[in-house]
Amino acid sequence: MNVRSRLDAHVDRYAARTRGMTASEIRALFAVATRPEVISLAGGMPYLSALPMDAVSSVVERLVMERGAVALQYGSAQGDQKLREQICEVMALEGIQADADDVIVTVGSQQALDLVTRIFIDPGDVILAEAPSYVGALSTFASYQAQVVHVEMDDDGLVPDRLRDTIKSLKSAGRRPKFLYTIPNFHNPAGVSLSLERRREVAEICREHDLLILEDNPYGLLGFDEEPMDALYAHAPDRVIYLGTFSKTFAPGFRVGWAVAPHGVREKMVLAAEAAVLCPPVFSQLAVSAYLETEPWKDQIKKYQELYRERRDAMLSALEDMMPPSVTWTKPTGGFYVWLTLPNGLDSKAMLPRAVTARVAYVPGTAFFADGSGSTALRLSYCYPTPERIREGIRRLAGVLEDELELHSTFGTGPRRPQRGQAGSELASAPYPDLA
Amino acid sequence: MNVRSRLDAHVDRYAARTRGMTASEIRALFAVATRPEVISLAGGMPYLSALPMDAVSSVVERLVMERGAVALQYGSAQGDQKLREQICEVMALEGIQADADDVIVTVGSQQALDLVTRIFIDPGDVILAEAPSYVGALSTFASYQAQVVHVEMDDDGLVPDRLRDTIKSLKSAGRRPKFLYTIPNFHNPAGVSLSLERRREVAEICREHDLLILEDNPYGLLGFDEEPMDALYAHAPDRVIYLGTFSKTFAPGFRVGWAVAPHGVREKMVLAAEAAVLCPPVFSQLAVSAYLETEPWKDQIKKYQELYRERRDAMLSALEDMMPPSVTWTKPTGGFYVWLTLPNGLDSKAMLPRAVTARVAYVPGTAFFADGSGSTALRLSYCYPTPERIREGIRRLAGVLEDELELHSTFGTGPRRPQRGQAGSELASAPYPDLA
Repeated sequence: MNVRSRLDAHVDRYAARTRGMTASEIRALFAVATRPEVISLAGGMPYLSALPMDAVSSVVERLVMERGAVALQYGSAQGDQKLREQICEVMALEGIQADADDVIVTVGSQQALDLVTRIFIDPGDVILAEAPSYVGALSTFASYQAQVVHVEMDDDGLVPDRLRDTIKSLKSAGRRPKFLYTIPNFHNPAGVSLSLERRREVAEICREHDLLILEDNPYGLLGFDEEPMDALYAHAPDRVIYLGTFSKTFAPGFRVGWAVAPHGVREKMVLAAEAAVLCPPVFSQLAVSAYLETEPWKDQIKKYQELYRERRDAMLSALEDMMPPSVTWTKPTGGFYVWLTLPNGLDSKAMLPRAVTARVAYVPGTAFFADGSGSTALRLSYCYPTPERIREGIRRLAGVLEDELELHSTFGTGPRRPQRGQAGSELASAPYPDLA
Repeated sequence: MNVRSRLDAHVDRYAARTRGMTASEIRALFAVATRPEVISLAGGMPYLSALPMDAVSSVVERLVMERGAVALQYGSAQGDQKLREQICEVMALEGIQADADDVIVTVGSQQALDLVTRIFIDPGDVILAEAPSYVGALSTFASYQAQVVHVEMDDDGLVPDRLRDTIKSLKSAGRRPKFLYTIPNFHNPAGVSLSLERRREVAEICREHDLLILEDNPYGLLGFDEEPMDALYAHAPDRVIYLGTFSKTFAPGFRVGWAVAPHGVREKMVLAAEAAVLCPPVFSQLAVSAYLETEPWKDQIKKYQELYRERRDAMLSALEDMMPPSVTWTKPTGGFYVWLTLPNGLDSKAMLPRAVTARVAYVPGTAFFADGSGSTALRLSYCYPTPERIREGIRRLAGVLEDELELHSTFGTGPRRPQRGQAGSELASAPYPDLA
């Protein structure tokens, strides 16, 4: 057989880990969903029109004029010293006391996820993660051939008893998880937060079982009602690797995130980062640093909070007004997402093409599980569309659901079970930017 | 034993691949070498003061004002479409005919190295690389537990007969290399280029043995004398993964590089990139794109060429004037580097502290080998210091060498052999930015 006649001439050369890297089946559908007539409740893109573009433009202009030879040059793999000090001030708002030397700046917090997985995970290693969990983390874990074991959540976040049970049952099977991956604040996709009491309890359980925690906190400062809760890091600094980002509180296009980690872990992350990208973008880092220094960044966060609160309100009241009675959903007090559970018998993935035809898009729940489950749920986001568009989107979605329910009651199709054989089709897929 | 009393409480949790990630012994020395009184001939930093900062500053200012909501947002994992088209125009200067769909934009070309290694290398897989080779590539390969086998070079680059021999002897040992990593133009660190005749021959050998080529070309447009030669990609587009970057022709601080690859490989690289960083920095990409569109970028490359030619001349004439007769070096016709070979008996690594004391720094040859060899050579770069500083730096280095030779002839210390037991101390180290 002629090598060049095959679809991919190099198919027999790839590393074993590439088996975990496959394109999402729903990707093609999302290409359709970006058409303007479709209301996308799928994306996790911040609403950047709320940024003061004139101020940002002055910041980058001055940066080149005043410090161009530094801002456009290579930099340190750990990241700019001054920015790392400013990051410590940002984290202090969530009760974190860290030293700039414990911080590494990364290419968005996605790269921090990649580096942590790279230094800890051998193929087959177990990672604990909430059920559901962030699609981008699941795809990183899959790309290192980790085995993700989900732990149940409820309206107060991760359930400590279930965490304890899972650790014990793994232990009795001779397995020791490498770390617990958790998003304590305004969870993506679940839209719930870990209560203060449970933060203490989760930290205690992890101490008891000598388990590391990977705390992912993109939305912590985007709460609508109260002051931010202390991070898990504040409860157990010696065993938490904390991830933060400027993507939601400022702008994702600079790709500036960070991690704080115990000293030895941070050192290994810097070595891994050097091999991966040499250094994070210096221009981006210094632009964020100058923005934090000269612009009223806390006021900007308040502006974002108010904007997203109004949109959350629009989504919750539209759901209340229009959803069939058998549908339930979470009530987020911050962040970008609502997690909606369908009546038994409906399948969010099978329903997506019909929703897109009705000009509304969401992310099927299956994207957020490593084990193929999640088909009875879906994620809605309210961060990007206007309140009017959100209301119209929910109206369209409600129409689709009513049609489905009518079909279901007429033909009595039984509930679709998660198809285990297809597990990993979305989870292993990398996150389409619209899903970030 | 109390876990917290250990130096790194998490030392028993790391993945096997971290064994390949260790900090360089010479790193501490380079911290000293960045003092202003030390003339560093070690760094690979482009001389950015040659950039028109006022023009770049207008570019970024306009970018935020006119396209801020796009430039500061998430983007596609493959990179901006228009930038990918412009990259194809840049590559056409080196005889490459590629479609924008074959291009992936990366966080510097270092990330492209990482992604290629990630999708092709299982632990223990063989990579062929020139002897010497780029330190940053060697550290990426080590972080994926690859086995690097070096192939000899001479003044015309990689020696085809040695390549053939190496492939055959690996084959007879039952090993098949995953790819050949090569820097055909103005090699880092060797300062030589692969002749046109050898390009054809290397492409033919790789075709014959069904071997992929990873062509790394940061310096191709920075030749001093003639028009650029056709890239290896132009000779074998179906089996070359080509890496390019704007770090040397424009500015490294944006971290914008790229790869061109056969379709199936490019697809896998995009999936791997999504898991690693979601998307490359959008602001950086659009800034580079706008710079290419509105500024005379080819004139800027000419300006760089003239600047570096003058510095190359300063270094070669200073070496000619001042080096002891037993020292030899390469004569680069482009790029940033001269490779200097010491008289038998001298050890470039052992000598470095003495050189730094004499206020001159270089990179010991051992950094550029995966097998612990290279101690009789060193890399000098002429890209950053002024011609006067270069001349003074070579004067200082010549003084150190003369002292060493005198010591050596007085006490007759035998030649130091490469210490195989220490192999990988530098190579496995991530590249200090100064070595980029």
